[in-house]
This record gives sequence, C-alpha cells and structure tokens, in this order.
Amino acid sequence: MQPNSLLEELSQPGQTKMVLIVLDGLGGLPVPELGNKTELEAAATPNLDELAARSSLGLAYPVMPGITPGSSAGHLALFGYDPVKYVIGRGILEALGIGFDIKPQDIAIRGNFCTVEKKGSELVVTDRRAGRPSTEHTVRICQRLQEEIPEIEGVEVFIRPVKEHRFVTVLRGEGLDARVKDTDPQKEGLAPLTPEPLVPEASRTASVARKLLEKIAKLLADEPKTNYALLRGFSRQPGLIPFPERFKLKAGAIAVYPMYRGLASLVGMDLLTVKGETLADEISTLKEHWREYDFFFLHLKATDSRGEDGDFNGKIKVIEDFDKHLPSILELKPDVLVITGDHSTPSLYAAHSWHPVPFLLHSRWVRAERETGFNEYTCARGMLGQFPLLYTMNFMLAHAGRLEKFSA
Amino acid sequence: MQPNSLLEELSQPGQTKMVLIVLDGLGGLPVPELGNKTELEAAATPNLDELAARSSLGLAYPVMPGITPGSSAGHLALFGYDPVKYVIGRGILEALGIGFDIKPQDIAIRGNFCTVEKKGSELVVTDRRAGRPSTEHTVRICQRLQEEIPEIEGVEVFIRPVKEHRFVTVLRGEGLDARVKDTDPQKEGLAPLTPEPLVPEASRTASVARKLLEKIAKLLADEPKTNYALLRGFSRQPGLIPFPERFKLKAGAIAVYPMYRGLASLVGMDLLTVKGETLADEISTLKEHWREYDFFFLHLKATDSRGEDGDFNGKIKVIEDFDKHLPSILELKPDVLVITGDHSTPSLYAAHSWHPVPFLLHSRWVRAERETGFNEYTCARGMLGQFPLLYTMNFMLAHAGRLEKFSA
Repeated sequence: MQPNSLLEELSQPGQTKMVLIVLDGLGGLPVPELGNKTELEAAATPNLDELAARSSLGLAYPVMPGITPGSSAGHLALFGYDPVKYVIGRGILEALGIGFDIKPQDIAIRGNFCTVEKKGSELVVTDRRAGRPSTEHTVRICQRLQEEIPEIEGVEVFIRPVKEHRFVTVLRGEGLDARVKDTDPQKEGLAPLTPEPLVPEASRTASVARKLLEKIAKLLADEPKTNYALLRGFSRQPGLIPFPERFKLKAGAIAVYPMYRGLASLVGMDLLTVKGETLADEISTLKEHWREYDFFFLHLKATDSRGEDGDFNGKIKVIEDFDKHLPSILELKPDVLVITGDHSTPSLYAAHSWHPVPFLLHSRWVRAERETGFNEYTCARGMLGQFPLLYTMNFMLAHAGRLEKFSA
Repeated sequence: MQPNSLLEELSQPGQTKMVLIVLDGLGGLPVPELGNKTELEAAATPNLDELAARSSLGLAYPVMPGITPGSSAGHLALFGYDPVKYVIGRGILEALGIGFDIKPQDIAIRGNFCTVEKKGSELVVTDRRAGRPSTEHTVRICQRLQEEIPEIEGVEVFIRPVKEHRFVTVLRGEGLDARVKDTDPQKEGLAPLTPEPLVPEASRTASVARKLLEKIAKLLADEPKTNYALLRGFSRQPGLIPFPERFKLKAGAIAVYPMYRGLASLVGMDLLTVKGETLADEISTLKEHWREYDFFFLHLKATDSRGEDGDFNGKIKVIEDFDKHLPSILELKPDVLVITGDHSTPSLYAAHSWHPVPFLLHSRWVRAERETGFNEYTCARGMLGQFPLLYTMNFMLAHAGRLEKFSA
C-alpha cells in the first residue's frame, strides 16, 4: 500500500467542491436465473449512464483481492486511511453503531449478556447469549445496571443496550488502557474468564472491569437467564490524524445510520443534521450546507440492506431511486464527484463480499469513457483500471486541483 | 512498491539491445472542443499504430494515482529507482539543469538574488526576486562573485547563473553536510534568515554559507536591486547505486536538455554527444553508438513543451514528427523498445498532470495487441494493464532476456 503521508504533504487548500457518494454495498453479481445481469445492469439508470460517458470508471478493492471488508474497513479506505494499518476495535465499532459520543481516551467494550450456573464450586457459562433476550428486556436491564453503577474506582461507567443480548460498556477516566483480555470462554460449559491485563499499563482497566462484572453478577443474581455478562473487544479510538487536517479541507458528513455517522465523526468530519431518513432528505442537507464545506461524504444504506436481504429487485429499486435523484446533485456542479461503494453486497450472495466495487469519477479533467453504462462490467474495462479503494482521496484531491506537484 | 533489489539480484549481462524512448509529458486529455480526442488520438501516426499492433500497451503511474510528478521523479521511476524513496534535492536539480558537473560529495544550493534594505538596525527583504533582473545581468553578477569568491575556509565555491534572479551555488570540500536550513523568509518585509545547521554535522556547511552571504552582501552593496541573496534547497546527490552496475549493462543517454542529461548522468549513464538539437540529430547519435552500448535512453523534450504551452496542435506536430522518424529507429532492430513518457502534460491542462502515461513495449516476446492504435484509450485497455512506471526496467530487462529465474 502507499505511503499516504505523501498526500498529506502535497495537499493544499482550495475553493473547489468535492462530493463522495457511498452507495453502501454497491457491487453485485450477475444472477443466471434473472437474465444473467447484476443489479446495476438490470436497473434502469439513464442519468448514471449519461454521467458515466463523461466520467472515468474503474473497479476498486476495499482492502485487497479476495478480502471481504466490514463497513469500517471500507470506509477507512474511502477516507484515505489504510484499513490494514488502522483497525477499529469491536468495542469502538459497537459504540459508534449506537451513536454513542465516544471520546478519544474512552475504552469501549462489547458486552453479551449470558447465563451462568454454579457447578460445584465453579461458575460455568451455560448460554453465551442468555437465550437471546428481546431488545426491550436488554434495554431495561441496562437501565437498571447504569443506575446502580455510575462509576467504579473513579472511572465513569456507561452501560448501553444494543440489540438482543448485546450491549456496550464505555469506561471514561484517567490511566486506562485497552490491552485487556476478552472474558468470553467461546464455549459453553466452561468458566467465564477474568479480565486480565495484557500489559502492566492495563492493570487499572482490568481491575475496573473485574469490579464491573462482580457488580453485574450481584445485581442480576435473580434474573433467570440474563444473569451475567461476557466482555470482548476492549478498544480505544485509533489515533487517526483528522481528515480535514490531513487534506486541508472542511468536510461535512451526511448519513442517517449511526455507524456511518460514527465513522465520519471518528475521522473528524462534521456531522450534518438530516431531517428525515430518505435520500431526498440527505440531498436537502447537501444543498443547505453547500457553501459551508468543500468536501461532502453522502452515505446511502439501502443498497447494502437489500443486498444482505438477498432482495435483487429491492436493490434495483434503490439504485433506480438514486438515479432519479442524481440530477439534483449534479445541479450543484461539484468539481469532483465520486460514486462508489464501501464494498460489494451482491444480492445473490446475500452478504458482504470480496468483489471489487464499481467506481465512477467525474470532473472536467478526466479521460472520459465516451460510451455509456455504469456497472461492474463497464467499470472493469474503464479508464481507471482496477485499484485499491484507498486511492479514492488521491483521485479526488488531484482532480480538484488540491495536490501540489511531487518533487521537481 | 516493489523490492527493486530483486531486479539487481536477477540481472545478468547479455548481447541484447534495449531502447527506452521518453517523449516527455506524452500523456494527454481529450479536448471536447477539438473532436473530443487526445493529442495522440488526433495525430496521424501510421508507424506508431503499426508498431502498437505488434507490441503490448499499458498505462503507467509515474508515482502513484493522483500524484503529479516533477521531471526528476518520472525519470527516476523510468530508470528503476523508487521516486518516493529517492528524492533529488532542489539544489542538485538546479545544478543539473544548467549542466553543472556535480560530484558525489558536492553540496548544491539554489540561490535567488533579492533586494534588502536597512530598517532601523535590521535588514529586511523588500523584493525576494530583486525585481526579476535580466538573465544577462545575473550572468555578469555571478561572474563577478565567482572571481571574488573562489573559496571559503578551504571549501571550493562555484557560483553559476541560471535564469533571471536565479543562480546556483555548489560547495566542494571536506566535512560538508546538506542539512542546513533555507534562508528565504518566504515573505517580503521580513529579515533574511541565517543558514542554520539542522544537525551538528552540518555546522561547517552552515558556517561557509554564512560567510558566503556576508561576502555577497559586501560585493553587491552598490547594486540598486540585486544586493543580496537567499539560499534554498541545500542538497547532495542521493546515494544511488549506478544504473549500469545494478542492471549489468552499458547505458548511453541521448538528450539535448541539460536537466535530462544531468538526470542520466546522476544514475551513471554515459552522456553521448548530440550534434544539433533535433530528433534527427539524436537518432544519428543513436546509430553512431549502436555497437558500443546495450541500453539507450533517448529523450525528446518538445512533447512536454507544447503541452505546457497549451498548444494542442503543436503537440500533435511533435508526435507526428516522431512518428516519421520511428522507422529509422526500428531499422536498428532493438530487441526491446519502450516508447512512453515520464508523466502526462495534457495541452488542455497546460501543465504536468497526474494522469497515467501511455506505454508501448515492443519485443518478440510480447503478447501483442493485434489491433492498431497507440493512445491513452488503447493503452488503458492494453495487455499490460495499469502499473507503476517503476516497473519499466522489469519489463525491459525481462523481454531482453536479462533476468534469471527467481527462486526454484
């Protein structure tokens, strides 16, 4: 991968406007039973096709060939952070996913409620998911725990529900360190592990976590199933140099889902308020803030959701809806517009996949494709070739005239 | 980027002949107002087209996607030196640009004549370019300074004019080190800085530079405008292993412009004398030395110059002229012929750009394209795909049968 510090050295401020549109999980696979077309090929997209003819196309690898990325890895690459180098811990991701306002020094931990039983003198885990309680149940449990455990040894403790048996704990205080071992024994019938520090610096954190588990055990002793917890993914924010600082621009993020708002916030973008949840609402936000920012990240979740559902026609509908809204984005005349995904979610596969994602780059300085069509096949033969998604910011900054010449 | 030491390990001597033709700034952009064609597409190039059908094509990134390289970076990549790893300092480049015979231990410094005035007890810069004097004036000033300052503290001093207010100083002697701070305050109204050593090892160099500035101030005290100097880009040659040694070949460079002769000399190629300045003159030199060398670097500047001028038709004419001369190069029957650029200089953009450069590789061992046409579009879809320009020597040596098998 590239030495990205080169981009930082060469970046300069400017007046140009850049828009990065992420259609989550955009890439697809042809479905033999449905005309052997991908979702992008089957969708009627007159506006995208017309734009493609005036743009350069390519296929981008989120991480590297064959690797299926999670959402955070794909977005880090899009934002110019090497996803292999900067890994966002599970605890942090869980906190971002519920929209928790995580601070730089916080330790975030994923929690699972579980069922334990005394077997002789030993405690063993009999159900690692506590019989999958309802989310409502977990909300109530977390409220009770939060009230009873506001702090431990001077460390502020946050306990928040996620979904079913899952919750998140955040520790906020002095002298904490995330290098603490998970407590999940991974198998039922074994004893839950104690939080052990992996380095001496993490002994305070491990001690707070041990106390937290003791308190949870006491408070939930009468619960029939959710009577204990397993802690995993102790983590802190990676020390990312903020996006606006690296690239000398003012960046606004337009996203509805907490996870993507969290990722944008993590790299230092401003979170813009979207009134509503539709693409039209997002575009209204874009227009409203057009003068204030020079870089916009606009995220659309539905392509990924329909892909995960295995809903081929549903994904087509989302793409066609985006196509209808495209002219209102083009009206703003961005100097650089990228339309791509953070990874592929083919509805045939009904999950994130490793396939490279279609990538469209529009600016007056591109070697335009001339022929129409925006899909996996036109992109594979496009002027940009195939490249790491990490180069997104290289392309955007260059075409926006934001990079000085390298060397002489 | 690749571990280039692999090439060094596998290179072996041979009888084959390789020719690397660099059409400086070759790559272009389509111009909507001129039939939406690039310069290469608009030019009539029957010989190049015919050769393309018997060659492999590709698009090459001089540094990496989005990065606009200076001439030195592009040429280092062409010669097999990672341009991110080996950066040639501004002072060295300026010295190369005027054809100064720079030695390995020399310190080269860019100089600007400037105007200073006493403001109270302090000296301030009132014009960082001394009112842009004529080159003739700077030539005279430099001659005078050179006569009066042949050496300082046992260090030989060279002072040579470049253009307008610019000159170059070279320090030659024992115990020098380039890690000295620039003295340009960057803004008018501020005092010129003193040359400060950035590391203790550079204190002697800084002291010589301070004395040099004192002498310049004294000698130019009566000049109305060019009465002082600012020093920038203290640098020494990067410690490059010579090209002929790395690749076990004898290399001759055919170039007219001092900068490119300087770059070839820097990597240890022999500089061949060109009688005249035209492409025909360069080809005569190629023919004259054909038996003596097994690798030739032939540089043509005009493609870049017309691109920088924004002269679309001018660039076409240079390409068409090259096409006319191509048969006389092919007559020599090189075993490997590469025709490419060091970067793109689209006449639409009228400057170096970040777009990858068209690349043609001819040898009897290529997977030939079969269809005709040599331009950005055929190259984007060519058999070589898109790759770092740093791989030029990999391709050339391999097709010349100069690389042993790797591992077993």
